[in-house]
Amino acid sequence: MFFIFLVSNNEDQRQNDCGVFKFSKPEKLAWLAKHFFTSNPMEVAREFASFWHTNVEAQRLFDGISENTITNFYMPYGVAPNFIINNLIYCVPMVIEESSVVAAASSGAKFWYTRGGFHAEVSSMTKLGHVHFIWEGDPIKMYGFINYLRPYLMDSVRPITANMDERGGGITQIELLYMPEIESGYYQLKVSFNTCNAMGANFINSVLESFAQTLVQEAECYDDFDERERDLQIIMAILSNYTPDCLVKAWVTCDIDQLGCCGDLNAYEFAEKFVRAVRIAENDPYRATTHNKGIYNGIDAVVIATGNDFRAIEACGHTYAARNGKYASLSHAEIKGNTFRFELEVPLAVGTIGGLTKIHPLAKRSLELLGNPDAETLMHIMASVGLAQNFAAVRSLVTTGIQKGHMKMHLNNILSHFEANEVERANALSYFSDKVVSFSSVRQFIEQLRNFPNTPIIALG
Amino acid sequence: MFFIFLVSNNEDQRQNDCGVFKFSKPEKLAWLAKHFFTSNPMEVAREFASFWHTNVEAQRLFDGISENTITNFYMPYGVAPNFIINNLIYCVPMVIEESSVVAAASSGAKFWYTRGGFHAEVSSMTKLGHVHFIWEGDPIKMYGFINYLRPYLMDSVRPITANMDERGGGITQIELLYMPEIESGYYQLKVSFNTCNAMGANFINSVLESFAQTLVQEAECYDDFDERERDLQIIMAILSNYTPDCLVKAWVTCDIDQLGCCGDLNAYEFAEKFVRAVRIAENDPYRATTHNKGIYNGIDAVVIATGNDFRAIEACGHTYAARNGKYASLSHAEIKGNTFRFELEVPLAVGTIGGLTKIHPLAKRSLELLGNPDAETLMHIMASVGLAQNFAAVRSLVTTGIQKGHMKMHLNNILSHFEANEVERANALSYFSDKVVSFSSVRQFIEQLRNFPNTPIIALG
Repeated sequence: MFFIFLVSNNEDQRQNDCGVFKFSKPEKLAWLAKHFFTSNPMEVAREFASFWHTNVEAQRLFDGISENTITNFYMPYGVAPNFIINNLIYCVPMVIEESSVVAAASSGAKFWYTRGGFHAEVSSMTKLGHVHFIWEGDPIKMYGFINYLRPYLMDSVRPITANMDERGGGITQIELLYMPEIESGYYQLKVSFNTCNAMGANFINSVLESFAQTLVQEAECYDDFDERERDLQIIMAILSNYTPDCLVKAWVTCDIDQLGCCGDLNAYEFAEKFVRAVRIAENDPYRATTHNKGIYNGIDAVVIATGNDFRAIEACGHTYAARNGKYASLSHAEIKGNTFRFELEVPLAVGTIGGLTKIHPLAKRSLELLGNPDAETLMHIMASVGLAQNFAAVRSLVTTGIQKGHMKMHLNNILSHFEANEVERANALSYFSDKVVSFSSVRQFIEQLRNFPNTPIIALG
Repeated sequence: MFFIFLVSNNEDQRQNDCGVFKFSKPEKLAWLAKHFFTSNPMEVAREFASFWHTNVEAQRLFDGISENTITNFYMPYGVAPNFIINNLIYCVPMVIEESSVVAAASSGAKFWYTRGGFHAEVSSMTKLGHVHFIWEGDPIKMYGFINYLRPYLMDSVRPITANMDERGGGITQIELLYMPEIESGYYQLKVSFNTCNAMGANFINSVLESFAQTLVQEAECYDDFDERERDLQIIMAILSNYTPDCLVKAWVTCDIDQLGCCGDLNAYEFAEKFVRAVRIAENDPYRATTHNKGIYNGIDAVVIATGNDFRAIEACGHTYAARNGKYASLSHAEIKGNTFRFELEVPLAVGTIGGLTKIHPLAKRSLELLGNPDAETLMHIMASVGLAQNFAAVRSLVTTGIQKGHMKMHLNNILSHFEANEVERANALSYFSDKVVSFSSVRQFIEQLRNFPNTPIIALG
C-alpha cells in the first residue's frame, strides 16, 4: 500500500494511470537518499531504518497508518502520576516533544493531591455534522420536505447506524437551517449524534453522505415540488469539528489559606495575583493565545497518547475560545469569600474506541494505564490535565517566571546536542544550578571543560 | 534527570525535599507495570521497552527531551513529493497519525505541479512578547518613565541579545500600552522581536523577564515618581504565541479551463462549486473549524517533522481565524474573469534553528530533505502544504465526498487490527474496491474468510 507520486522522472514504467508509484519501503528510502541526501545516502538510509521497530509485523502496522511512510518519528512518551480526578488516582500517559510539560502537569497534580484533587463533569456529548445544499424555492416548502423525509432518512441509514443504535447511540436530531445570508438558497441539514465511546468521524461522515444522496433522489420525485424545485444541489456533506455541546468542565477549589506560601507571596497575595493573571487572559487575545496554548500542551499530550486527533481537538477548542466575538481564555479563576476556585471548560470530542485507539499498540496501553475509561471519563482526565498544566504555568508566571524551570529542563537537550558525557553533564548541572541557561552559555561551558579536561570547573561530589 | 512525583507510597527514602523521586527508566517501567498492568506486568514492560532505540546513546537523547519518559510513541513519518513552491521542487516530510493526509497533500501537489505550482510570500516575521504590570499613577508619567528607560532597557539585555544582534535580529520595538479597561492601572510593555531563523521562545522570555526586573528596580529610584509611584507590580513577563505579523501567504492560480473535468463537473462548474464551498467556510464557524482543521492536518505534519511546536502554531492560527470577531476560514478562493485563484494566509512562527530542530535526529534530517531552508522558506513550504491539503479536501468534498478515499486508506488500519495476513489483505482490498468500508463490515469479511479458509471470497490474481 505504499505509493509515491512522481510526476516526472526516468522510472515511468512503474507509474500507473494516476501517477502513483508502487515502491517498497527500502526502494523509497533508496530513492530519497539518492535524490536528497547526496553527500551520504547510505548513512542516511541506515539512520532512517534505525527507527523501525525490530519486529517486522509491528513495524508493518505503523507503515500502514499513513501513506508514503519511510520510518517512525519518535515522540517522548512519559507519565504524570498522582492525579486525583473525581476521587480516583490516575497515572496519566503524556506524549509531548516539549520539555517541562510533563513536569508541570506532575507538579500541578501533586499540588492538588492534598487539596481534594480535580473534579470534572461532562454536561453533554453531542457530535455534529451537516449536509450543505442549495435549493431555490419557497423555504416553507423545504421545511415541509424535510419533515416528510425525516423518518425515511433515519430508516435509510439503518445499516450504518445499527451497531451504534445497539450501543445506545445514533442520530439524536435532524434540523433544517436556512442561511440565505451566506449564499442564495443555502441550507444546512444539521444532524446531531450520540457516538457513545467513539469520536465517530467516519460514522458521522458515512451517515451524512448517505443523507445527501437521499435528499437529491427524494427531491427529484417529491410531489409538492415543481420541475425547478426538484433540483437540489449538494455542496458537501461533512462532520463539524466544532462541537460546543461536547463539553467538559474541570475544576479545583480550596480555602485560600490552604494554598500556602508561594515564593515571596502569602496565600492571599498569591490567590489574588493568580486570579488577576487569568483575568488578563480572559480579556486580551495576545495573552489568551499563549494561556490556552499552555492548556493544550497538557490536553494534546493525552490526546496523542490515547490515539486521538489533536488537530480536531485544537480547532474545536480555539473556535470555542472565540465564541463570544473575542478570543479569550478557556480557564477562569475566582475568589469567593475565603475560597479559591480555578476551572476550565472545554469541548473535547474524543473516543476510547475506533480510530487509532486500539490499533496503535501504545494508544491501547495508554488507555489500559487509565483503567480503560469510557469517553466521558477520558474527557474528565484530559480537562484535568489541561487545568493542572495551566495552574502550574500561571503559578510559575506570577512567581518565579517560567524561564528558570524551563531552561533547567532544556539544559538536558542542549547537553545532548553537544554529546556531553556523564562527567560533563554532572559538571554542567552543578554549574548552572544558579546561572542563566542559554544555548551559547552552555556551549562556552562545554568548550572550556573540554579544553581543560583536567581542571573540572566544578568538582564532582 | 528522570523523576516521578509520588506523594504517598512506601518508598519514602527515595523522595527528596520537593517530592521528587529519582527512578531509573527500568525502575519506572517496573513500577508502572506492577501498579497498573497487574495481569501481565512483565509482558507490558517488555512491550514498552521494545519501542526504545537499539542504540543506547540515541535513546538517551529521547529520554531527556521530556520528563518521566518511559518509551517513544511512534508517529508515522512519510513524504509528499512533487511540491513545486516558488519554482523549486520539494519532497516534503510529514509526521501524522491520520490516514489519507499525506495522500491528500501529495495529490494536491501533483495537481498543481503542471499548473505552475505553489507560490508563497512572507510579509513580515515579527515575534511578540509582553511584560504585564500594574502601576497606579498618572499614565503620562508612566509613558515618560518608559521613554527615559528605553535605551537603558536595550543595553541591559545586551548579554542575552548579543548573538541575535550579530545575526541581524534582536529587539525591534518597545511600546507601552495602557489598558485600564482590563484592570485598574494595567499596562503592557509590548516588545517586538526579529528572531531570524529561530522560533525564539526562550530568547524572548529571557529578555522579557530581564525587562521586568529592570522595570521594578528603576521605578524604585526614578526621580519623577513619588513614594507611591515607585511601586511597580509585575504580573508576568511572557512571549505571545499570537503573532499576526509573522505572516505568510501561499496561493495557486490558473485559467479555469486548465482545471480540467473533476468527477461529473466540467472545469467551470468545479471552479464555481469550489469557490462556493470555501465561501461557506468563510461565513459559518461550524464549517470553518473543520475546514481549518484540514489545513492544519497538512501544516502540523510538517511542523512536527521539522521539530517545531504544533500547539503554538495551532493557537496562533485559530486566534488569527477569529480576528474579525467571527471564527472563519483561513483560505479564500475566487474566480476573476477566466482565472481561478485559491490562497491561504496564515501566521507561522517557526524556526529552523534552536529548540528541537537540530536536537531531534529526524527533525534535522527533515530540514536536510527540504534543503536546509531558512525560517522564511520553511513558512513558504508549510503554508503551501496547508493549501495543498485544503485543496484536495475541498475537491473531494464537492465531488466524490471524502469517505470513499478516506475509508480505503483506513481499511489498512482495520486489517492491521485484525492481524490480517498477506492473503487476507489481498482478498479484502479486492473485495472492498467497490464496497463501503466500515469496521464492522471488515470484521464480518475477515471472520467469514477465516471460517472458510479454503474458499477465498476473492481469488488472488
